[in-house]
Amino acid sequence: MIRRLNEAILKTGAPIVVGLDPNLKFIPETIRKKAFAEYGETAEGAAEAFWQFNREIVDHVADLIPAVKPQIAMYEQFGLPGLAVYDRTVRYCHEKGLIVIADIKRGDIGSTSQAYALGHLGSTPVGGTSVRGFDADFVTVNPYLGSDGVKPFIEVAAGEGKGIFVLVKTSNPSSSELQDLMVQDGRGQMRPLYEVVGELVDTWGSGLMDGEYSDVGAVVGATYPEQGRALRQIMKHTVFLVPGYGAQGGRGRDLAHFFHPDGLGAIVNSSRGIIAAWKEEAYAAYGEAAFGEAARAAVVAMKEDIRGALEGK
Amino acid sequence: MIRRLNEAILKTGAPIVVGLDPNLKFIPETIRKKAFAEYGETAEGAAEAFWQFNREIVDHVADLIPAVKPQIAMYEQFGLPGLAVYDRTVRYCHEKGLIVIADIKRGDIGSTSQAYALGHLGSTPVGGTSVRGFDADFVTVNPYLGSDGVKPFIEVAAGEGKGIFVLVKTSNPSSSELQDLMVQDGRGQMRPLYEVVGELVDTWGSGLMDGEYSDVGAVVGATYPEQGRALRQIMKHTVFLVPGYGAQGGRGRDLAHFFHPDGLGAIVNSSRGIIAAWKEEAYAAYGEAAFGEAARAAVVAMKEDIRGALEGK
Repeated sequence: MIRRLNEAILKTGAPIVVGLDPNLKFIPETIRKKAFAEYGETAEGAAEAFWQFNREIVDHVADLIPAVKPQIAMYEQFGLPGLAVYDRTVRYCHEKGLIVIADIKRGDIGSTSQAYALGHLGSTPVGGTSVRGFDADFVTVNPYLGSDGVKPFIEVAAGEGKGIFVLVKTSNPSSSELQDLMVQDGRGQMRPLYEVVGELVDTWGSGLMDGEYSDVGAVVGATYPEQGRALRQIMKHTVFLVPGYGAQGGRGRDLAHFFHPDGLGAIVNSSRGIIAAWKEEAYAAYGEAAFGEAARAAVVAMKEDIRGALEGK
Repeated sequence: MIRRLNEAILKTGAPIVVGLDPNLKFIPETIRKKAFAEYGETAEGAAEAFWQFNREIVDHVADLIPAVKPQIAMYEQFGLPGLAVYDRTVRYCHEKGLIVIADIKRGDIGSTSQAYALGHLGSTPVGGTSVRGFDADFVTVNPYLGSDGVKPFIEVAAGEGKGIFVLVKTSNPSSSELQDLMVQDGRGQMRPLYEVVGELVDTWGSGLMDGEYSDVGAVVGATYPEQGRALRQIMKHTVFLVPGYGAQGGRGRDLAHFFHPDGLGAIVNSSRGIIAAWKEEAYAAYGEAAFGEAARAAVVAMKEDIRGALEGK
């Protein structure tokens, strides 16, 4: 699947993933009003507003980008109706030819990780057949439980021709609290925990190469460019999924060294900066009704920002 | 909520939580056949089998125990029908007076953790009202993202009078890979990562005391009794949620020091050992149809095992 992702990046010229993380605050009033008129101020009403919003965004950006990254928490907070729209969004993005990176950050003991992996990337046996729960192309995975919590995801991904991104250095302010702790590695050297996790990801990924890169990727935040530089050296065949661009503070010029000279090796996510662009001063002229056009303009601007950074590298 | 949990532990004399982690392999054929006859070999059929199985188990153990711990992954693997039965199980356990510890192991950047927290412990604003997604009493939380990924759970728990259990030292074989790494703590001392996380949990929990104990608990695996001893010293006011008993290898006599002299301070989980007891040689005499009775007998035996260990302490 990473080969397909890289091909789509080269074809679109956009190492960009749009985060489909809807929030009622980002959704124009007309959509909210219509959804609430039909379903009331209920979870179903919120979910309907999410769906109408997502569809408009996807319709306006699908031809520009290789992939989307729905953050399942935004849907899960509305319970079953929310998760039904998560599922519908994944399916709709597939119809549009987009690769779906499900940001689920799951991770548990082996048998439980296997259930998550089957539910989000594979299929689960039922009697003489098997059924798909959700159907993403990649999922994000939390490494705190170690290899036996990650390997079931790798095994299912391998069987399905899909992939995963393991959290290594996350974009949030307090990611330093555990991830930057100096630890003694297997050779007795002191180094930050995220480097040890990076080495594990490199090892896990070596068994799942798909062309020049591995189907086991890494999450490395745009907000930590220096740490990203070190991690690039440790994980040479790993694609970085890079959150934290835009609203969280990351900029294109900080990210050039996340990429290899072939223009691959990283895919940068922006969520709020794209889907809520219509609320930003720079895109206010589009007006509320044209929020999809505003999102499209924001993708074009992000693409230029990153292309400029890579050309100036 | 931890006070209510402790009161329920004292009343039942059982510091025990039953893991409602259904698996088609544990479910008697008659239940599976009936569910598949009605819904086909589909996700709906699997979910119906889970529901009939869970209800029978809960009906047979509810009066003996304070709490249950559904592992959401087992339901999530069957997509929306699975999660509908997760939700139904949580509601049914509440009707039976049980405290529900949702084993979801979520954790993300701040705004995303807030969505998970609202979705599983609280309620999310929709227009002029707010709606509940899922409705557990406690959730488990992954600490890899640091304080800003955990605090939204604490804030929502505080507002709702609920609680959380943070992963500190998990029960799986490779938990040592990251959690046991020797790290340099804030005072320049070398110690295992799980101890640093234990100190964070102690700090986070000090702001959310509910009687003698905090609503911020810790997950400490039964399979690592020595590490549990050190963690007990670090987290004096923290209740330990202890997985890994039974099928994973933990025994009552290893766990006495997880408890304080008041008989509180820990609650031990068993999943397969209870819900699949009818498949064990020790309970085979109950037969397949009486799987609920077998589960009840397994709870009684577990209670005796732990009581014996605490009396012999």
